[in-house]
Amino acid sequence: MDIHNFPSKLLEETVNELANLPGVGYKSALRFALFLLNKNEVEVEKFGNTIINFKKKIKHCTVCNNISDTEYCDICEQTNRKHSVVCVVESIKDVMAIESTQQYQGVYHVLGGIISPIDGIGPSDLAIDLLEERVQKSEINEIILALSTTMEGDTTNFYLYKKLSKYDLEITTIARGISFGDELEYADELTLGRSIINRVKFQMNNH
Amino acid sequence: MDIHNFPSKLLEETVNELANLPGVGYKSALRFALFLLNKNEVEVEKFGNTIINFKKKIKHCTVCNNISDTEYCDICEQTNRKHSVVCVVESIKDVMAIESTQQYQGVYHVLGGIISPIDGIGPSDLAIDLLEERVQKSEINEIILALSTTMEGDTTNFYLYKKLSKYDLEITTIARGISFGDELEYADELTLGRSIINRVKFQMNNH
Repeated sequence: MDIHNFPSKLLEETVNELANLPGVGYKSALRFALFLLNKNEVEVEKFGNTIINFKKKIKHCTVCNNISDTEYCDICEQTNRKHSVVCVVESIKDVMAIESTQQYQGVYHVLGGIISPIDGIGPSDLAIDLLEERVQKSEINEIILALSTTMEGDTTNFYLYKKLSKYDLEITTIARGISFGDELEYADELTLGRSIINRVKFQMNNH
Repeated sequence: MDIHNFPSKLLEETVNELANLPGVGYKSALRFALFLLNKNEVEVEKFGNTIINFKKKIKHCTVCNNISDTEYCDICEQTNRKHSVVCVVESIKDVMAIESTQQYQGVYHVLGGIISPIDGIGPSDLAIDLLEERVQKSEINEIILALSTTMEGDTTNFYLYKKLSKYDLEITTIARGISFGDELEYADELTLGRSIINRVKFQMNNH
């Protein structure tokens, strides 16, 4: 169906706005708009204002660049965490993913993206200077690079390594290997090779 | 990942609102929220206000119940259409779908749903009284029932037929049959059977 045959300008504008959302096409946007139309006015106002308010009031933690409602984020505020270990991630989603493993006691540094010349994102668009400042100012013993294993991730890792290797700290990267539940025969050669080179001592509860 | 581990109350509220949209889960809602966060404040305000404005200002055509920016919708305003033929549909989406075929010259009546006792939708929740009033007031020769072929669609068709059959007009329903491009062997028996019973004269440009 030709989705551009709108019976109303107001509907058209709304669908156009909603279709900007990532992964949302015109059909889904129309579905969203008609869904919102079925809600009452108070609910729709709450919907719109929550989003506007979010953008207006949200802050970035002045230490780690994570999003926060206050000047320092919840994680940086926690005194029982190891503030000398900093895990560098691309986005807030990665912080949430690592936090939900409940395996990490250190703090984070959110770059806000990775170096990607194709998308016009260079080092100066990311919170890399903030990270270097942080390394200079506070006592950091270890930087864990936890970026994705793409070309852009590798580029960013390399750039960060060059920037930070002159400081007295350990630079590590998260382990790459076979996922739990994966069959060896279907694993890619790079991952499988790496998992053999970086093998760890067998432990009864950690195999 | 445990998506409920929000670093910010504002983010959490926004994700909750966005996750209300049909077919949107928490992961997509988070993606939407972070996408909006990357936009500038003016763009996000436009996004939110467009939606609020849409709900506040949109009208329903007082004749056919289609959505409209004005008292009468564009279609009802068109004098070159056949106002004596009314196609009854469930929602605005169906109007848009039929309009895009460019095969229909009549007008519409948008019920705003179909009778569905399970969802608590009865005849009084739909624009059925408005349709009956319309039949009484204006000169209508034909009502085309174009609802979906579900149990609820059939119930609604039956209800409308009972309501409207006492008036001097023809009640028709859209043709059911094999879609263009479909193979007969994969068609369901009901559709195939109906397409044989309701066969039409072969024409060189209409096969």
